[in-house]
Amino acid sequence: MAATTGPEIERLIQLLAKLPGLGPRSARRAALSLVKKRETLLVPLAAALTEVADAVKVCSTCGNIDTADPCSVCTDPRRDRSLIVVVEDVADLWALERAAAVSAQYHVLGGTLSALDGVGPDALRIPRLIERAHADEVREIILAVNATVEGQTTAHYLMEQLEGLGVSVTRLASGVPIGGELDYLDEGTLSAAMRQRRPF
Amino acid sequence: MAATTGPEIERLIQLLAKLPGLGPRSARRAALSLVKKRETLLVPLAAALTEVADAVKVCSTCGNIDTADPCSVCTDPRRDRSLIVVVEDVADLWALERAAAVSAQYHVLGGTLSALDGVGPDALRIPRLIERAHADEVREIILAVNATVEGQTTAHYLMEQLEGLGVSVTRLASGVPIGGELDYLDEGTLSAAMRQRRPF
Repeated sequence: MAATTGPEIERLIQLLAKLPGLGPRSARRAALSLVKKRETLLVPLAAALTEVADAVKVCSTCGNIDTADPCSVCTDPRRDRSLIVVVEDVADLWALERAAAVSAQYHVLGGTLSALDGVGPDALRIPRLIERAHADEVREIILAVNATVEGQTTAHYLMEQLEGLGVSVTRLASGVPIGGELDYLDEGTLSAAMRQRRPF
Repeated sequence: MAATTGPEIERLIQLLAKLPGLGPRSARRAALSLVKKRETLLVPLAAALTEVADAVKVCSTCGNIDTADPCSVCTDPRRDRSLIVVVEDVADLWALERAAAVSAQYHVLGGTLSALDGVGPDALRIPRLIERAHADEVREIILAVNATVEGQTTAHYLMEQLEGLGVSVTRLASGVPIGGELDYLDEGTLSAAMRQRRPF
């Protein structure tokens, strides 16, 4: 079968298909949309990608992705410097910031401990966290890892490592999500919410 | 609320969110994935977009999008030059080619007639189709427009315009999709399939 379109466009489709959320078919649609909106979308997107490729940095303090190092979160003077929120991924940091859940410092682990995949503490930016925890100003470390087995295993390991440093180690509350219907919740969440019930 | 990440990355997220299939949340995920895969995805995608922006052309014969004009479909010597398949959009041309449904020439209208939206024949590459239909070699024009009201209205208009040119005008069969379950099909499709039933 001969080509339907040029090799440059086929290559673009292949690359777009590697983005999370786009499959081969939606990548094709995205490529067509880009080509049709050459001036308003294709050219600006090419420029934005080149700019980000040149400017992007991983914050050497917390692991956030930004165009400055230290990142705009670490250098923000209005944030509580006594509080470090530990997350697995940059996406979790951004999610907590969107929710305006806390005005604190962050620390991005970059994953979870996994004996199977050979992910040890050194691969996870954990030594840097211990180092940061030694600072006099730090009083609380919130382990905001995912409520998965891997996340909780990592949390337990961190708890042990952070013991005796004079910082209190806390974790996110578990329970019924706001707007959640009991009927649709799993048994684990329901029994956790029941065990950790609070006075009304 | 202060920024969580750099303005360049925020701008990239905004542009990605304009792609079909990506919303604000998945655009954020896509941007993160790009940044994490700087060498294997971000840089190649920026290069591919720039290349396409420089090279993309709309075929002046059929309206296909390619990096050559006339496009690789129009110049393919193995295709039947007596047959022109009329489609609404480049995406439809690509879909028919993926299905290897026919080895023919194409003609992309670029939409459907719409009195409401002020889309007349001249906006739809219809004059060029009439011109192509006059060529001696053309014997059949297949109207492969969508089975929607707008598509069928456009097909009827084209039928009238192409009458008396000595070319036969055909349309796609309508009926039960392969693998389709009758129970899930709409009444229109079912009665069309019944009316157009064929000997077994």
